[in-house]
Amino acid sequence: MTKWVYKFSQELTDGNKEMKGLLGGKGANLAEMCAMKLNVPAGFTVSTEACLDYYKTDKKLAPEIVSQVKEALSWVESYTGKKFGDINNPLLFSVRSGARASMPGMMDTVLNLGLNDQSVVGMAKLTNNPRFAYDSYRRFIQMYSNVVLGINTSILESNLEDLKEARGVHEDTALSADDLKELVDVYKSVLLEDHGVVFPQDPMEQLWKAIAAVFGSWNNNRAIKYREMNSIPHEWGTAVNVQSMVFGNMGDDCGTGVCFTRDPSTGEKKFFGEYLLNAQGEDVVAGIRTPAPINNDSKNESNKHQKTLEEVMKPTYDELVKTYKTLETHYRDMQDIEFTIENKKLFILQTRNAKRTVVAALKVAVDLVNEKLITPNEALLRIQPEDLNHLLHPRLDPKAAKTIIATGLPASPGAASGQIVFESNEAEEWVKNGKKVLLVRAETSPEDIGGMAAAAGILTARGGMTSHAAVVARGMGKPCIAGCTALVIDAKAKTMIVKGKTYREGDYITFDGASGEIYEGLIPTIKAEITADFAVFMKWADDIRRLKVRANADSPEDAKAAIGFGAQGIGLCRTEHMFFAPERILAVREMIFAENETDRKKALAKLLPFQRADFNGLFREMNGLPVNIRLLDPPLHEFLPHAEKDKSELAAVLGLSMKQINERNDALHEFNPMLGHRGVRLAVTYPEIYLMQVRAIVEAAIESDKAGITVLPEIMIPLTSELREYSIIKDECKAEIEKVFKEKNHTVKYKMGTMLELPRACIMAGEIATEAEFFSFGTNDLTQTTFGLSRDDAGKFLPVYVARNIYPKDPFVSIDQAGVGFLMKHAIAEGKKTNPGIYAGICGEHGGEPASVEFCHQIGLEYVSCSPFRVPIARLSAAQAALKL
Amino acid sequence: MTKWVYKFSQELTDGNKEMKGLLGGKGANLAEMCAMKLNVPAGFTVSTEACLDYYKTDKKLAPEIVSQVKEALSWVESYTGKKFGDINNPLLFSVRSGARASMPGMMDTVLNLGLNDQSVVGMAKLTNNPRFAYDSYRRFIQMYSNVVLGINTSILESNLEDLKEARGVHEDTALSADDLKELVDVYKSVLLEDHGVVFPQDPMEQLWKAIAAVFGSWNNNRAIKYREMNSIPHEWGTAVNVQSMVFGNMGDDCGTGVCFTRDPSTGEKKFFGEYLLNAQGEDVVAGIRTPAPINNDSKNESNKHQKTLEEVMKPTYDELVKTYKTLETHYRDMQDIEFTIENKKLFILQTRNAKRTVVAALKVAVDLVNEKLITPNEALLRIQPEDLNHLLHPRLDPKAAKTIIATGLPASPGAASGQIVFESNEAEEWVKNGKKVLLVRAETSPEDIGGMAAAAGILTARGGMTSHAAVVARGMGKPCIAGCTALVIDAKAKTMIVKGKTYREGDYITFDGASGEIYEGLIPTIKAEITADFAVFMKWADDIRRLKVRANADSPEDAKAAIGFGAQGIGLCRTEHMFFAPERILAVREMIFAENETDRKKALAKLLPFQRADFNGLFREMNGLPVNIRLLDPPLHEFLPHAEKDKSELAAVLGLSMKQINERNDALHEFNPMLGHRGVRLAVTYPEIYLMQVRAIVEAAIESDKAGITVLPEIMIPLTSELREYSIIKDECKAEIEKVFKEKNHTVKYKMGTMLELPRACIMAGEIATEAEFFSFGTNDLTQTTFGLSRDDAGKFLPVYVARNIYPKDPFVSIDQAGVGFLMKHAIAEGKKTNPGIYAGICGEHGGEPASVEFCHQIGLEYVSCSPFRVPIARLSAAQAALKL
Repeated sequence: MTKWVYKFSQELTDGNKEMKGLLGGKGANLAEMCAMKLNVPAGFTVSTEACLDYYKTDKKLAPEIVSQVKEALSWVESYTGKKFGDINNPLLFSVRSGARASMPGMMDTVLNLGLNDQSVVGMAKLTNNPRFAYDSYRRFIQMYSNVVLGINTSILESNLEDLKEARGVHEDTALSADDLKELVDVYKSVLLEDHGVVFPQDPMEQLWKAIAAVFGSWNNNRAIKYREMNSIPHEWGTAVNVQSMVFGNMGDDCGTGVCFTRDPSTGEKKFFGEYLLNAQGEDVVAGIRTPAPINNDSKNESNKHQKTLEEVMKPTYDELVKTYKTLETHYRDMQDIEFTIENKKLFILQTRNAKRTVVAALKVAVDLVNEKLITPNEALLRIQPEDLNHLLHPRLDPKAAKTIIATGLPASPGAASGQIVFESNEAEEWVKNGKKVLLVRAETSPEDIGGMAAAAGILTARGGMTSHAAVVARGMGKPCIAGCTALVIDAKAKTMIVKGKTYREGDYITFDGASGEIYEGLIPTIKAEITADFAVFMKWADDIRRLKVRANADSPEDAKAAIGFGAQGIGLCRTEHMFFAPERILAVREMIFAENETDRKKALAKLLPFQRADFNGLFREMNGLPVNIRLLDPPLHEFLPHAEKDKSELAAVLGLSMKQINERNDALHEFNPMLGHRGVRLAVTYPEIYLMQVRAIVEAAIESDKAGITVLPEIMIPLTSELREYSIIKDECKAEIEKVFKEKNHTVKYKMGTMLELPRACIMAGEIATEAEFFSFGTNDLTQTTFGLSRDDAGKFLPVYVARNIYPKDPFVSIDQAGVGFLMKHAIAEGKKTNPGIYAGICGEHGGEPASVEFCHQIGLEYVSCSPFRVPIARLSAAQAALKL
Repeated sequence: MTKWVYKFSQELTDGNKEMKGLLGGKGANLAEMCAMKLNVPAGFTVSTEACLDYYKTDKKLAPEIVSQVKEALSWVESYTGKKFGDINNPLLFSVRSGARASMPGMMDTVLNLGLNDQSVVGMAKLTNNPRFAYDSYRRFIQMYSNVVLGINTSILESNLEDLKEARGVHEDTALSADDLKELVDVYKSVLLEDHGVVFPQDPMEQLWKAIAAVFGSWNNNRAIKYREMNSIPHEWGTAVNVQSMVFGNMGDDCGTGVCFTRDPSTGEKKFFGEYLLNAQGEDVVAGIRTPAPINNDSKNESNKHQKTLEEVMKPTYDELVKTYKTLETHYRDMQDIEFTIENKKLFILQTRNAKRTVVAALKVAVDLVNEKLITPNEALLRIQPEDLNHLLHPRLDPKAAKTIIATGLPASPGAASGQIVFESNEAEEWVKNGKKVLLVRAETSPEDIGGMAAAAGILTARGGMTSHAAVVARGMGKPCIAGCTALVIDAKAKTMIVKGKTYREGDYITFDGASGEIYEGLIPTIKAEITADFAVFMKWADDIRRLKVRANADSPEDAKAAIGFGAQGIGLCRTEHMFFAPERILAVREMIFAENETDRKKALAKLLPFQRADFNGLFREMNGLPVNIRLLDPPLHEFLPHAEKDKSELAAVLGLSMKQINERNDALHEFNPMLGHRGVRLAVTYPEIYLMQVRAIVEAAIESDKAGITVLPEIMIPLTSELREYSIIKDECKAEIEKVFKEKNHTVKYKMGTMLELPRACIMAGEIATEAEFFSFGTNDLTQTTFGLSRDDAGKFLPVYVARNIYPKDPFVSIDQAGVGFLMKHAIAEGKKTNPGIYAGICGEHGGEPASVEFCHQIGLEYVSCSPFRVPIARLSAAQAALKL
C-alpha cells in the first residue's frame, strides 16, 4: 500500500526535512520542526504523489487516499482532543499548498476550515469571543468561495467595505460581532443569489473540496507561468498541508508575526521581526495595520513608537528567541519564521531558509562558517554566482522613485545615469567637458570604441546579448542595455522616441543593465562595495576549484583590472582591439589599400611598434601568468570607415580618389561576414599580417624577459578548420619567430595553438592536436555556426524561441550542452588521444556564465576566460562545479 | 634480400600486369607481354621501391641494387647474345621511366645507351649502315646530355640545324653518315668547351647515371606539378625500364609505329594506326615527317596517298594484327600499342589501355560486353561518371579556332554562344525578338530567374561553384561560368571590360561551362547526342545500384526533364522558386508588408491557388514517385526589390510611401542572412506561411488522387536545429492538413520530415528522428556552417585553399567526408537508433558529384537528389559505388 498521508505532531512524525520531494518544502519543515519537539500545531500532509495521482485519475481522490486522510484526521482529533465538525468545540484546519520549491503566492490556501453555521456559535460560546468566531467564519467563507468554489470574491470584499462605511469605521477590527454576523449572512445570500451556491455546511465536504482545490491550483495559469520562468518542472506537483488551526485573533493575548534570525538586507547577526496583536497571518501581509517590532533591534522610523513583543509578552518572546536559535542551529542557515501566539502560547507555523540580499547572503555565509555552523564548502554553495554582479557594479538606490520608460536586454550589469548623446565622438567631447553621458545608438561598431569607453553606459536599439555593444560593454565592465526595440533612434536628428515621447540630446535618463530597465531622469545609484567577507569567501572558492579562471583583456588597463578580480592569466587578447586608436587605424587602412605585398608590409611596419608596446604592457602586468594572444580575426572591412565624411578624409590622407575608396569597400563587402574572409583565412592570403604580429609579440616578450619579467605567451590562430591550414600558418609564424630570436640573439618560451570555433575544427581536433599545444573554444562563433544562427540577426526570433521553450536558454548566454557541448567533448577526447599533453580553455562569452563554467569543469577544460568583471563569478562557479561533481 | 630488379623476356619473366605498384605501368605491361610470349625486346625493370630507396639514401644506388642490375645485365647479354660495351656487336639499351600511373612526357628517357666512339664504329660495320650508327650515336649524345648531364641542349639542336643548312637539306634523313659523324664531333667539342664535360665513354657509367637521372626526374618541377594536378601521391616513385634496343631506323625494312585496337574518337571496332619507315619512335611523335596509315581504315585526308604498312610489309602487318587481337583479348580493353620493326621483324615496345573520347569509351564498353570480353559490371567501371556530361551537353567544335579572353569557374557544363546582355529583362526581351543571348551579371539573385531561363548561358564575375547563378544554371542544365574575376562589369553602362578590352551589349562571345573558358566571337558548337548504347549502359547501372537517384525540380517542366533522365522521384522542390513569377511576387510582397497576421493571411490566400497548381503539375508528372517539397526557406528580404525603380513601382501598387518600403527593407536587412531569419524560423514567427503551403500541397494531392494519380508527397521542414522546433511546426502543419482532409472529406498519405543542414541538427538527429519520418541532408548549407564558410564570399580565398591543398577538394563541389561526412554519419547512426524506419537522402549540390555519391552509398543513404541533367551521372556513380564496396 502506498503511503499518501504523513502525520506530524510533537508526539509522532512521519516525515523529515529531507522529504521535500514528497511532502513539499512546507510539509517537510513542519515534520522536521515537530521532530525537534517545537510547538507546531498538529496536522498531516497529503503527498505530492497524491497530487500526481489526482491528475492521473482524472481529478479524483483515490479511495486509498481518502481513507488515509480520514485516518489521519481522527488521529489529529484524538491528539488535540477536539472534533472536526463538533458544534461545541470544533477542530478547525488550515489547508495549504506546499511544493518542492517555493512558489510564493502562486497556489491556494484556506484557513478556518471546518466552521459552519452551528459550530461558529459553539466557538463563540467556548471562547467567549463571538467577534473572533464570526470574524473567522466570514474570512473562511471569503477564502473558500474564492479558492474552492472559484468565485470572483471582489463583491464580497465590497460588501465588507460597504459595511464599514455604514458603520463609519475604517478598520476591520472596529466591526462588532453582530456586524460580522450580519456580514456572514450577506455573504451567504450573495453566493446563493448570484451563483446559486448554498455555502457547504458539511466539514468533510469542505475538506475534500479544499484538498482538490489546492491540487488544482498547481495548474492555475500563474503557477504554470511561474514554473516556466523559474525552470520548475511541471511534473513535480504540490503537497497539501492540513494543519489544526491556532488563533492569533482571539484577543490581545494573541497575535501573529514573522521574524528573521538575521537581518535579511545586511546579514548582520541580529534577531529581526514584526508582529500584530489579535490578528491572523494574512493581516500581517495585507498591510492594513502597521506591524510592531518584536524587539528594539527591529525598530525603524515607522514602527519605533509601537511596543515590542519583548515588552508586551516577555515570556513568549523569550520562547521565540530560544526557538529561533534552535532552528538556525538545526537548519544551519538564516531562517524566516512564521509564528502565532494563542493565549500567550507560542506556535511555530513555518520555517524556511530566509531570502536575503546578496550582501546579506555573503555576510551570513561567512559568519556561519566563523560560527562553525557550516563549512566553507557549504558556504560556497549558498551564493548564486550571478548574484556577485550586485557586489561588483553600482546599483540603483532601491528607495528612489522610478518611472520605467522601456525595457531592453540586460546586456551588461550595473546602474548608469547621465545625459544622452547619439554619436561616439560627441560622447568623448561631452565627457571631456566634464559631463556624464550615456551613449545611445541603433547599434555599435568597432568605430564606437572611444565613445563607449567615455560614456557611463551604453544603450542600443538593436542587437542581442552578444552584440558588439554587449560584448564590449561587458569587457569594459560598463552598464549596457542592448536590443531595446522600443527605442526609435534618429542619430541625425539627435532624438530618441519612446512610445511617442521624444528625448533629445542632453536629456537625462537612468538605466539598470542588470534588469534591462530604462527610467526617466536622474535616479541616485549606490556604489559597489567590496567587503572583507568577499575576499575571505573568494579565497575559499579558489582553494576548492580545479578550473583556472583567466580574463579576456586587450590592454594593460584591462589586464590590471583582471588581476584585481583574481584572474590567473589572459585567456584572450583580441589584437584587433588595439587597431582602432586614431594613430593606428590609419596604418591599418593603408595596409588594406596597399596594392601589393611590399606596400602592405610597409604599412604593417608602422603598426609593429604599437603592437609591441601593447604586448610589453600586457606581459608586465601579467608577470608570471600566461597571456593568450589571438592573431588578427575580423574581416578587413571592419576597419574601413563607412560615413561619407570619414571616407573622404581617408581619401585625402591616402591620396586616393573617393572612387578608389568606394571600390575597395565594395570589393571587401561580404554577404555573410561571419563566414567570410577572416581569421586564419586572412593569413593564408596575406601572410605578412600575422608575421608582423608574431614579431611584435616575440620582440615584446624578449624585452620583458630582459627586464626580469616572466613571460608566458600563448599565440593563438583563430578560425582554424583543418590541420593543414593551421600547420602552414603556424610554420610560417614559427619561422618568423626563429628569425627574431636570431636577430635579438635571445629566445623566450612560447606556445602555439588554435581556437576551436567552427564545428569542423572540433570534429578534426584529433588531427589538429598533433601540431597544436593548446585549444581555446571560441564558443560565440561555435554557437553561431553549430546553430547556423547569426547573433547579430537572431534578435528577431531568438526571444520567441526562448519564450516558447524551443531553446531552454539563449545559447549565446549559456552553452548549449547538447549541441555545442557535444562538439566540445568530442574535440577534447580526440585531441587528448593524439596529444595527451594538450590543454584547452574557453574564451567565449560563456566563460563567465555559471552553468557554462560548470560544464567546462565537467568536460575537463584547463581554464575559462571571461571579461574581468565576471572573473569573480567564474571563480565561484568553478568552485561550485568542483563541489557538485 | 629485397628483390629490386625484375627481368623480362619471352623466356623468363619476373613480373606481371598486376605489379604496377612495384614495376610501374610500363614495366608491368612489358612483363605481362613477355609472359604472353609476344616479341618484346628483353630487359629488366628497376622497381619503384628502388627509387624510394634512392631518395632515402641521399640519392645513392644501394650496393644490393647495383649488384642486381649487374646480374640482370649479364642475363640480358646472354639472352641476346650481345655484349654491353662490345666494340663489334654492342648491346644497347633504352632507359625509360615508368610510374604506377601514366605521366606522359613528364619524366625522362634515354635511347641507344651503351654507344661510344668505338662501338659506333663496330655497329656501323656490323649493320653495314654507318649512317644508322652515327645517327643513333648523335641522338644518344643529345638525349644523354639533356637528361643525364642536365645541359640545355638547344645549342646541339642548332648545330644540327646549321649542318642541314650548310648541306642544303631539309630533313635529318637527308644527312649522310659523314655529316652525322661530323655532327658527333661538333657535339662533343661543344660539351667540352662550353660545359667542361668529356662525353662518358664507359657504358656502365652511362647506365648508372641514366638510372639515377630517371629516378631524379620523378622530382623535376613539371612531374611534381603534374602529380599535384592529377592527385598522384608523391610517395609512389617511378620504376626504371632498361630494355635492349631494337632499331626502326636501320633501313627501309625497318620502322616504328603506334596503333589503336579501335577508333579512339568514336569507339568503332576498326584497327587504326600510323607508322614511319626507317625511324625511331621519337620521330613519330616529333611530327617532322607525316606518318603513314597502317591500313586502309587508318587513312585520312592528309595521309591517304601514302602506302599502308599492310601494303609494304604484309607479313609483318599480319603479325601486328594477330598481336593486337591477342593483346585486346588479354587485356579485355582497347589498347594503344607501340611497335618497332627491325629488318621486318615485329617488336612490341609498349601496350596500354588506350585513352579515348567519352563517346568512344561508351561504345567500346558496350561492344566489349557484347563481345563477351567483359561483364556489364566491368563496363560500368570503365566510364568516369563526370564524363557523361559531355554526352548530355552541347560542346565546342574541337576543330574550330578559338581565342580565349578569360577563364572563370566551370559552374555548369555545356557550350554556349550568343550576344551579351547585362540585365535579365533585356535578356527576356531580346530572346522574344528571336535573338540568342548570354546573360552577363556581376552576380545573379532570385530576381534574375526569368533572364536566366531565357538566356543560352550565364556568366558572372562573382560567386563560386555554388553561387546562385551556378546552382540555378545547373538546375536548368544551362551552361554557366561563375566567378570570372577578370570581368569588370558595368551594368549601367552595359559594358564588360576584360583585360582592357571593352565588350558592349550585343557583342558576340562563346564560352564552355565545362572548362570555364570564354572565347571571342561565335564558335560553332556540337549538339549533345544520346546513343542507343547509352540507354543500354544506363540500364546496367540501374540494375546494380542500391542508391536511388532523384532530381531537384521546382516545376512540372523540370520534373518532366528529370523523368527523362531517369530520376526516381523529386528529392527537392524549392517552393520559393515558385514565388518569383510576376503575378505571384506581388502577393509575396504584400505578405511581407502586411502589418498583422490577418493581412498576411489575406496575401497568402492569393498565393494558395498558384502553389496548388504547381504541386498538382508536379504530382501528375511524377505519378507513382515520391515528391519531396521543402517549405519556404529563404529570408523574406530575398523577395523584395532593390532597384529604386522597382521599389517605387511596388510602393505605388501597395499604396505605401517609399519611406515605408525602405523602412521594411532596412528592418529585414541582415548581417549574415545565411544564419538569419529563414527556414523553420520563419514558421516559428509567422506560422501562417507554412500553413498555406501545406494546404496547397494537400489540396493538390487530393485533386491528383481523385484524378487517379498516385501521389507520394514528402513535406520537408528546412533549417531545423532542435526537436522541439521541428515538433511544434510539424504539429501545426499536421493540424492544418487534418483540417483539409475534413473539408474535402478525403485523405491522402504523406510523410513529414526535415532537412539536416546545420551541425546541430546532425548532432541532435537521434532526438529529431523520434518525430521525423525522413531526413534530407542539405549539404550546401551544412558545408557552409560546418566550415564557417559562406559560399558567396569564399571566392576570395577558397581557390587559394584548394591550390595550396589545404582543402584537397572544394568542399562545395565534393563532400568533405572527414568533417561534414562525420556529422552525416553521426546523424544517420543516431537517427536509426531512435527510429529504425527513418530513411535519409541528400539534396545538396553534392548529390550529383561522383565521389559524394559514393560516400552517400557507403553511409547508407536511401537516395541522392541532384539537378535533372546530373541524374545520369549520379546513376552511374551509384552503380560504381555498389560495385566498389
